[in-house]
Amino acid sequence: MDHQIKQWLKDLTIEEKAELCSGQDFWTTQGVERLDIPSIMLTDGPHGLRKQAGASDHLGLNDSVPATCFPSAVGLASTWNRELIFDVGVALGKEAQHEDVAVLLGPGANIKRSPLCGRNFEYFSEDPYLSAQLAAAHIKGVQNEGVGASLKHFAVNNQEHRRMSVDAVVDERTLREIYLASFEGAVKDAKPWTVMCSYNLINGEYASEHERLLTTILRDEWGFEGLVVSDWGAVNERAAGVNAGMDLEMPTSNGVGKQKILEAISAGELDEQDLDTAATRILELVLKATKQKQSERKVDMDEQHRFARKVASESIVLLKNEKQLLPLQKKQKVAIIGELAKKPRYQGGGSSHINPYKLDNAYDELAELAGEEQLTYARGYDLEKDKTEEQLIHEAVDAARTSDAAVLFVGLPDRYESEGFDRTHMSLPTNHEALIQAVLEVQPQTVVVLSNGSPVEMPWVDDASSIIEAYLGGQASGGAIADILYGIESPSGKLAETFPVRLQDNPSYLYFPGEGDRVEYREGLFVGYRYYDTKKVQTLFPFGHGQTYTTFEYEKMTVNAQQLTENDEVTVTVHVKNTGECTGKEVVQLYVHDKKASVIRPEKELKAFEKVELAPGETKEVRLILDRRSFAFYDTKTDDWTVENGEFDLRVGSSSAQIHLSETISISSVEEPNFVVTRNSTIGDLMSSAHAERVSQWMETHFGNNPFTADSQTEEQVDEGGSDMMSEMLKYMPLRALVNFQPSVQANKALDELIEELNQ
Amino acid sequence: MDHQIKQWLKDLTIEEKAELCSGQDFWTTQGVERLDIPSIMLTDGPHGLRKQAGASDHLGLNDSVPATCFPSAVGLASTWNRELIFDVGVALGKEAQHEDVAVLLGPGANIKRSPLCGRNFEYFSEDPYLSAQLAAAHIKGVQNEGVGASLKHFAVNNQEHRRMSVDAVVDERTLREIYLASFEGAVKDAKPWTVMCSYNLINGEYASEHERLLTTILRDEWGFEGLVVSDWGAVNERAAGVNAGMDLEMPTSNGVGKQKILEAISAGELDEQDLDTAATRILELVLKATKQKQSERKVDMDEQHRFARKVASESIVLLKNEKQLLPLQKKQKVAIIGELAKKPRYQGGGSSHINPYKLDNAYDELAELAGEEQLTYARGYDLEKDKTEEQLIHEAVDAARTSDAAVLFVGLPDRYESEGFDRTHMSLPTNHEALIQAVLEVQPQTVVVLSNGSPVEMPWVDDASSIIEAYLGGQASGGAIADILYGIESPSGKLAETFPVRLQDNPSYLYFPGEGDRVEYREGLFVGYRYYDTKKVQTLFPFGHGQTYTTFEYEKMTVNAQQLTENDEVTVTVHVKNTGECTGKEVVQLYVHDKKASVIRPEKELKAFEKVELAPGETKEVRLILDRRSFAFYDTKTDDWTVENGEFDLRVGSSSAQIHLSETISISSVEEPNFVVTRNSTIGDLMSSAHAERVSQWMETHFGNNPFTADSQTEEQVDEGGSDMMSEMLKYMPLRALVNFQPSVQANKALDELIEELNQ
Repeated sequence: MDHQIKQWLKDLTIEEKAELCSGQDFWTTQGVERLDIPSIMLTDGPHGLRKQAGASDHLGLNDSVPATCFPSAVGLASTWNRELIFDVGVALGKEAQHEDVAVLLGPGANIKRSPLCGRNFEYFSEDPYLSAQLAAAHIKGVQNEGVGASLKHFAVNNQEHRRMSVDAVVDERTLREIYLASFEGAVKDAKPWTVMCSYNLINGEYASEHERLLTTILRDEWGFEGLVVSDWGAVNERAAGVNAGMDLEMPTSNGVGKQKILEAISAGELDEQDLDTAATRILELVLKATKQKQSERKVDMDEQHRFARKVASESIVLLKNEKQLLPLQKKQKVAIIGELAKKPRYQGGGSSHINPYKLDNAYDELAELAGEEQLTYARGYDLEKDKTEEQLIHEAVDAARTSDAAVLFVGLPDRYESEGFDRTHMSLPTNHEALIQAVLEVQPQTVVVLSNGSPVEMPWVDDASSIIEAYLGGQASGGAIADILYGIESPSGKLAETFPVRLQDNPSYLYFPGEGDRVEYREGLFVGYRYYDTKKVQTLFPFGHGQTYTTFEYEKMTVNAQQLTENDEVTVTVHVKNTGECTGKEVVQLYVHDKKASVIRPEKELKAFEKVELAPGETKEVRLILDRRSFAFYDTKTDDWTVENGEFDLRVGSSSAQIHLSETISISSVEEPNFVVTRNSTIGDLMSSAHAERVSQWMETHFGNNPFTADSQTEEQVDEGGSDMMSEMLKYMPLRALVNFQPSVQANKALDELIEELNQ
Repeated sequence: MDHQIKQWLKDLTIEEKAELCSGQDFWTTQGVERLDIPSIMLTDGPHGLRKQAGASDHLGLNDSVPATCFPSAVGLASTWNRELIFDVGVALGKEAQHEDVAVLLGPGANIKRSPLCGRNFEYFSEDPYLSAQLAAAHIKGVQNEGVGASLKHFAVNNQEHRRMSVDAVVDERTLREIYLASFEGAVKDAKPWTVMCSYNLINGEYASEHERLLTTILRDEWGFEGLVVSDWGAVNERAAGVNAGMDLEMPTSNGVGKQKILEAISAGELDEQDLDTAATRILELVLKATKQKQSERKVDMDEQHRFARKVASESIVLLKNEKQLLPLQKKQKVAIIGELAKKPRYQGGGSSHINPYKLDNAYDELAELAGEEQLTYARGYDLEKDKTEEQLIHEAVDAARTSDAAVLFVGLPDRYESEGFDRTHMSLPTNHEALIQAVLEVQPQTVVVLSNGSPVEMPWVDDASSIIEAYLGGQASGGAIADILYGIESPSGKLAETFPVRLQDNPSYLYFPGEGDRVEYREGLFVGYRYYDTKKVQTLFPFGHGQTYTTFEYEKMTVNAQQLTENDEVTVTVHVKNTGECTGKEVVQLYVHDKKASVIRPEKELKAFEKVELAPGETKEVRLILDRRSFAFYDTKTDDWTVENGEFDLRVGSSSAQIHLSETISISSVEEPNFVVTRNSTIGDLMSSAHAERVSQWMETHFGNNPFTADSQTEEQVDEGGSDMMSEMLKYMPLRALVNFQPSVQANKALDELIEELNQ
C-alpha cells in the first residue's frame, strides 16, 4: 500500500472514514481539509463530457459546459473498430483533463436484451464479446489520458422500466455467458479505475449490496482492483453496501450514509475492517487521479469536431443499397426531406445528454458538398408531434417528384428514447411513416436515412432500395451523413445488434419488462442473434450486417491445427480482397459453432473480429485468434468454464447471416469429466463413460440372456415400432429400473455394491 | 371406513401390509389368501383393452386379447364431444368387465408441450381446460361401468426422452395453470378411482415420491380420495413413496418393495401409519372393484365396431377444402394412392398398442361405398421404408393423372411415433413427401388424408386444396375416412392442438428435450396457442380449427351481466345457425382475454365450449358458463387463484383464430389486495393504492415545493425528453430514493415512521 494512503488511514477518524464513503455533493467525493485529502470530480458521460457549470441541482440536469459530442455507444459499436474507439476515449480524456474531471462515468457495457430499453443507445451490443472488446477500447483510451473510466451499470440493468426496484431474475449460465461476460472482458482487459453498480436487483439482491457480484466475482475472480461507485441514488442500505464491496455512494446523502455505517459498526453488524477497505479504495482513487491531473491540458475543439465527424462517418451502417443509388452524384437534383435534416437527432436523453460545442446538420453539410442549388428541402413532418400534417407531406411529395432523387431523414424524436423509461413499441412516429410511404410512391430513387438509438420496424423496407442507419452520430453527424451520401467516405459500419422484423420476434418479448418489480430472463442465452439464428427466425437485418460501396472476397481460410487441446491458442487466417472500385473497410467476423454439446448452446457465437481497410484490388491476410474461452460454456455443475471434447465449426463471414468460409476443428478437453454413478444413472450414459465395460459385464452376470441385450429386440413378441422403443428404453433406463424390471432383493443389493465399486 | 376394510387392517400383519403395496405380478395386485383378500387386475389402455392373454412377460409386451380399438386420445380430443367420449368410456368399461379387468390404465391428461413427444397420440391437448374436460368424460364413462380409470401420468411427463430420469423444471404458476390444471379439472369433476404417477422428476423430486403433488395438492387441495399407483417401474425408493402418498407399486418388485418398507419402518424413517394409509387405499380399491364386478357381462363386438366407426368419423378434422373438392361424388373416377389406404396406421406404439378385434382399411371401405370399379389403387411408397421408389411414384402419378380426382394417403409409419422415444423432426417420411409433390403436380383435384399422432410439417400445404387429418382413428378408421370422403358424415372434428408451420416455431423448441437429465420449461405458460397468439406467430392450422361441409353463422351474443363480482357465474349465450346445405356439427369456443393484468398473461385462454348439431337452416342457442376460475390466474404471492379487478373480453369463435363475436365485461374482485409498504415501494404503486392520499400529504410536508410535483417538469432546465423521463422516474421511484435525492438524516427517519404507519 502506498505510504500516503497508509498515513491517511492512520490519521482519519472512523467518522471521517464513514463520511468518505459518500459524495460531498452531486459530483464530487468528500475531501478532508485537515488532512489535505482532496475532493475529485466524477462526471457523465460516455460520448462526451457533461460537467455541470453552475451549482448542480438535485437531479444533475442543469446545463453543462460545452463539450464534444461523439456518437452514442450504439454508433461507436457500429464501427467495430477498437482503435477508433480507443481514440474516442483519448479525446474524451483530454477534455476531462481540461475540465478537471477525474473520472468519466462510462462506458456502459449492458447487453441489449430488448430493442425497447430506453438506454440502448448508451450500450454497445447484444453480444457480450463485441461489447466487452469495445468497452475495453473505450476505457483504455480514457485512462490513457490519466482520467478514470467507470464501467457501468454493473449488472443486468437491461431496462429502464422500474430500474430502481426491479429484480432481474437470470439463471447462472446466462448471467455468466451473456450479462457478466460483457463486463468481465472489459474489466480483465482494460482495468477500469472504477465500476459503477446499477440500480436494480439481481436474483433478489440490490446491485449495490451484491457481495457475490461486487466482491466474489468482480474482485476475487476477475482481479478488479479499482473502486465500485454507486449509480446516482442506487444505494439501498449503505452499511450493507460497504459490507458487499460497494465503496463510494454517490451523490451525497447529507450524512445519512455516514450515520448508517457508524450505527452498523456500533451494532456489530458491519466490520470496521470493511469500512477501512472502502475508505482505502476511495483514497487510492483520489490519489491516483490527483497524481495524473494535467490541469493545463489544452484541447483544440475544432480538431475534436473533425475527429467526431470521422468517427460518425465510420459509425454509419449502410443497411441496403439494392440499386446502387448510393453514393449520390453531385450533378443530381436531390430533394432533402424531413425536419431531421435540419434539426438532427444526434444523442439520447438522460444523464449522457451533453451540451455540444458545435452542431452540424445534414442539410447544410450536403449543401456544402453539392451546392445548395442542387437541393430542395421539404420539412415533411413536425418533429415535435406524431400527427401527420397533409400539407407537409404534400410539399415533400412535390419535392421528391421534381428531383432526380430524394433523401428522406426520419427517425425517433428525442421524446422516444431516453434514460428513465423504455419504449413500448418499435415503430417510427406515424407522421414519419406516412411521409416514407408517400415519398416512396412517387420517387423510387429515394434514400432513407434513419436517426435513432435502437432498432425500429420498417414496414416499407421492400420499397426502399437504399437505407442508411445513422444512429445517434453526435455533433458532427450531419457532416458524416453528407460524407457517406456523396461517397466522400465509403460506409463501413456493421450492426452490433439485430433488427428484428417485428417487436414480437424479439426473444424477450413475452417477458419484457416483467411483472411488477420482477423480470425473468426466460430466453436465457438466446439473446439477439443467438435466438434468431438458433430458432431460424427471419430478421430485418442480421447482427453484423453492413454494406459498403465496394465488394470483398474471402478466400484461403487456414487454421493452425485441426486437432487441438483446449489450452492451445487457435489462429485462423483468411484472405480478404477488395474486388470493387473504391477503398473500403470490411469487418471480418469469426463465429464458433459447437457441433455437439451436453448442454443447450446457441447455433453460433461471435468470438473474434478484425476490421481491415483495403484499396481497390488489394488483398490482406486477416488473423483471428481464439482461446480456450472461445469454445467454453459456463458449467453450472462445476461452477467453471468448461470445454468439451468434440468438433467445432469456425465460421468466417461478413455478418452473422453471411458466412463465407468455414473450417471444422477437433478439440480435446484436458480434464476427464467426473461421473458420479447413482441408482439413477442411465445405462446409455454409463455405456458412453469409462464404466462401460464393467457395467456390461455386471449386467451379463446378473441378467444373463436378458431383455436388454440386442438379441431380444428382434423377437417377434415385440410390437411394431417396438424395436426403436426397446433400444431407446434401454439407453435411457436408470440402473435402478433395470432391477425394477427383473427385481429381486439380491439383485438390488448387488446393484448397490456395483455403484459403490464404480464410484471408488 | 367400511367394516370389511377395518377387519382386514386388523387381521393383516405388518409384513402382509407391506406386501400389499407392490403388485403380485405384472398386472395384478397382491392378494392375501388366508384373509380372502382378492387380487384385482389393472390393464392398459385408454383407447382399448390390452389384457395379456398368456403369461405376462417382464415388459408386458406380449400379445393381448382381441379388443375394440377406438381412436387414440388425439382423435378422441378432436371430437370436442364430451358425451361421445363418455360413451367411449362406457364401451371400454364393458369390455373390461367382460375380461375381468378392474382398472383400465387411462386416460392420459398430459399436456402436449412439444409436437415431438412420442406419446402425444395418447394425450388430449395443448390446452388444460380442454384436456381436463375430455379426460373427465372418459373417466366418467369407464367408471359408469363399475371399472376404475387411472388418470395418468401425474405429472409434467411431457416427453419420452429420458423419461425415467429427467427432471422437469417448471415454475409454480405454469405448473398450476397448465400442467396440473389438466389433472385438477379431471380429478375434481370425475373422481377417478386411481391416479398413476409418472416416471420423471418434477422440480427435483421423483413423481413417485412427490409428497407435495401426491398428497398436498392431489388429496388435500383437490379432494382426491382414490389410490395412487406407480407407472410400471416408476418407483425409485419405495419407502419414500409410501411416505409421499404413492400407495401401490406396479409391477411386482419380487419382494424388494416390501423389504424396503419394513426396513424403513424398523429404522424409524417411515411411520407405520403411512403404511396403513397406503394399505387402506389398496384394500378400498380392491373392495370397490370386487363389489362392482360384472363377470357375466356380454359385449357385442360388432356393435362396438360400428360405434368405433362413428367415433372415428367425428374425430376426423377437415383442415382445408378450399375448392370444395369434398365430399367426393360417387360418379367420379378416383385414384386411391398410398399404402396407408390398405395398411392403415390407426394406433400408436407402446403400452397402449392393442390387438384389434377387427380392422378396416380405407380402400375396401371406399370400394364398398363407391364401387371398386370407380377406384384405381397405387401403392405410392413402401410403408416400411423412408426411401423414395421412383417406380411407385410413377405408378401413382399415372393413376392420379388418369382419374377425375386422387385421394392421397400419407402419414407417419409406426416406427415414427411410440411411447419410449420422441421424434426429432416434424417431417413426413421423404418418400411420402416425394409422392405428395409428384401427385399434386399432375392432379389438382387431390385430397390429402393424413394418419399421424401429432402434427407434421406440410411444405406442400398451399398446393393441396383439400386436406384431412385422420389422426390415429382406431380399428374402424378406414370406414370413417370413407364416410367423410363421400359425405356420409359431415366432418366435425376440431384441432385440440396447434399445427405450427415449422418445428422451430414451437415455444419449447430451444429447450426440448433439455440438457441431460434436466428439462426447463422456460416458455412457461406460453404453450400451444397461448404462445402463437401472444407472439403473433403464423401457424399452419390454429388450435380449435376444423371445417365441415356446411356453413355456420354466429349472432346475438349475450352475457348475463356487464358488471359482475368474481364469485358470480357468467352465462354467455350465442345463436348459431346452419346456413349451408347439409346437417353439421359446430364446436362453439369461448376464449377469455384479460385486458390488463398485474402479471403476464397469454393473449386469450379457452374457458368453455359446446358442440352442437344443426340441420340446414336450423338455429340453436348455445349456452356457455364461466366461473371464477375462468378469469383467475395462479398468484404465487398468495399461493392461490386470484381474480383481479378489471375488464375481460369474452371472445366466441369457431377456432382460436376465428373469433366471430366478442363482449367485454367488468369484474370486481371481492378481496382488496394486501399492500405491504417497504422502503422500496414505488411512488406510482403507492399512488394507485389506498395509501395515495397519505403519501401525497407526507411528500408535501417533507419536500414542499419539490422536484416531484408536476410543476417542476415544465421548468426550462429540463432537457429535451426530460419531461417523460421525469414523470417516469417519479412513478417508478422507490420511497427510499425519494429521500436519497434530497437526503437528510431527519427525512430518512420520517420515512421509516411513515412506512410503519402505512403498514398498521
